[in-house]
Amino acid sequence: MSAAATRLDTPVFQRLALIGIGLIGSSIARVARQRGLAGEIVVSTRSEQTLVRAEALELGDAYHLSAANAVRDADAVIVSVPVGASGAVAEQIAPALKPGAIVSDAGSVKAQVIAGMAPHMPQGVHFVPAHPVAGTEFSGPDAGFADLFDGRWCILTPPAGTDERAIERLADFWRGAGSDIEMMDPEHHDLVLAITSHLPHLIAYSIVGTAADLETVTNSEVIKFSAGGFRDFTRLAASDPTMWRDVCLNNREAILEMLGRFAEDISAMQRLVRWGDGDALFDLFTHTRNVRKRIIEAGQEADMPDFGRPHGTAPEE
Amino acid sequence: MSAAATRLDTPVFQRLALIGIGLIGSSIARVARQRGLAGEIVVSTRSEQTLVRAEALELGDAYHLSAANAVRDADAVIVSVPVGASGAVAEQIAPALKPGAIVSDAGSVKAQVIAGMAPHMPQGVHFVPAHPVAGTEFSGPDAGFADLFDGRWCILTPPAGTDERAIERLADFWRGAGSDIEMMDPEHHDLVLAITSHLPHLIAYSIVGTAADLETVTNSEVIKFSAGGFRDFTRLAASDPTMWRDVCLNNREAILEMLGRFAEDISAMQRLVRWGDGDALFDLFTHTRNVRKRIIEAGQEADMPDFGRPHGTAPEE
Repeated sequence: MSAAATRLDTPVFQRLALIGIGLIGSSIARVARQRGLAGEIVVSTRSEQTLVRAEALELGDAYHLSAANAVRDADAVIVSVPVGASGAVAEQIAPALKPGAIVSDAGSVKAQVIAGMAPHMPQGVHFVPAHPVAGTEFSGPDAGFADLFDGRWCILTPPAGTDERAIERLADFWRGAGSDIEMMDPEHHDLVLAITSHLPHLIAYSIVGTAADLETVTNSEVIKFSAGGFRDFTRLAASDPTMWRDVCLNNREAILEMLGRFAEDISAMQRLVRWGDGDALFDLFTHTRNVRKRIIEAGQEADMPDFGRPHGTAPEE
Repeated sequence: MSAAATRLDTPVFQRLALIGIGLIGSSIARVARQRGLAGEIVVSTRSEQTLVRAEALELGDAYHLSAANAVRDADAVIVSVPVGASGAVAEQIAPALKPGAIVSDAGSVKAQVIAGMAPHMPQGVHFVPAHPVAGTEFSGPDAGFADLFDGRWCILTPPAGTDERAIERLADFWRGAGSDIEMMDPEHHDLVLAITSHLPHLIAYSIVGTAADLETVTNSEVIKFSAGGFRDFTRLAASDPTMWRDVCLNNREAILEMLGRFAEDISAMQRLVRWGDGDALFDLFTHTRNVRKRIIEAGQEADMPDFGRPHGTAPEE
């Protein structure tokens, strides 16, 4: 990881176009600049306000409201928009793409995104879909930071027959951003992410909704006593609504499969609680403890209590 | 909060006995020492190994395997054991309690704990049940720290007719530990905590179990790509199994009520996903975002992205 933080002498891409400049796009811009991964960065977003903000933050070298204008002469294009919009972006940029350009994305869903983007890709353009598994609950160009991808996985899901050198160049870019690379087919990606990301978000949104709707416990009580555990869920439930609406609409089958299994497991737990089966509850609660240990060992979680949240205002003993 | 960190000139209790010296008990010991809340601290646990460790950590002034021996001449006793054991502890200590002593606890469930402890309390002893709403996923005497209660709420649920001065002294102790005080009746406490703490823990245990049982996604994939959201749940699911088994067995009705409502809401969400109702999903996802904002404003959550987790190894721009 530390090697990734060093600045490259030769950029991976001479000109990188970023379509969408929210949390992910602006983090790509920052890390590309910081570590010399791109010679020139061209920024595009369809929101004039966001484009003005991106320029004020000096995220790129050039700024365009038109995605087609932004991709002209670019060696690589990374589309970081809500997944429901990626097909339309592909259609807009297609006529302006340079032969030999690499087109990628950062979407949390792959099969539907590929179905939406691939048909528009001109002959001679290399389409290498990708998903950096990283994020925070914040969104917009101010939310990004250069270290977001450091130590995280980037999953590439190129269609069969994709040019190997194009795949390798995109992998080099993400390695330069600090990420490890994993190859997957799109359908398997969507199943893996349904359990590791999509289901957790939907559950978090759901329980926060459940709590808000109670008649017997007030909303202000929920907020005051949230340190008992509830507050952990509110982080995921504060994520970008447009992004998550699009994930639900575009990974429906895998999400329904995981929601169905989870609902069964919740029913089984209800039954254990109702019948007071302490031994079975204890076994389940013991079994799950080990999973966190393995996540910490895998470098995907901080090894400190309570996520390393600050506690108190006084110096510790 | 900063005032709480100052050392008191006169301790709230001359002699404080702590029965149970895990995360909560040892944090009470540390804050009582650091801020001068108790003249003398007597530590008791039924595990010889834990008692030896507590002594090595210098958590108290005296150490007893027998809870009855520990409470002799104590002005205040705080029982911090899994809630299923608190009735038996009350029975053991009852004959040794000093007249006028205050007996309290730190249990996450109140009605059942009171039903188990109150009948044993001798005439002239003041029983003031309490619940400091604070914790981490770690357990044992090494896991405690003096700032655990700083800025958190401590809920007192004294039975009607409890001596007001005894309530006020216990409240003073918790204020000295940095906490804010809330008064509630035990049944309402159990309902509030069922939604803010018990349901979140059960959901976390459940989804971590769901993920572990999949045939289509391997456990090592779940672990590698957990930064997409799943890892947030593993913190609560790494909590002490004995404590949580006892919470389930002792707050059954309220937990079943909350689990039932949550299961309904999950069904409703399944339906929205199945029918592709993007507008309703967007509305739900927007509504929940505000809850986190209010929790941060209430001082119950850190105002930084991703809980303030460390990101990357390189210096930021």
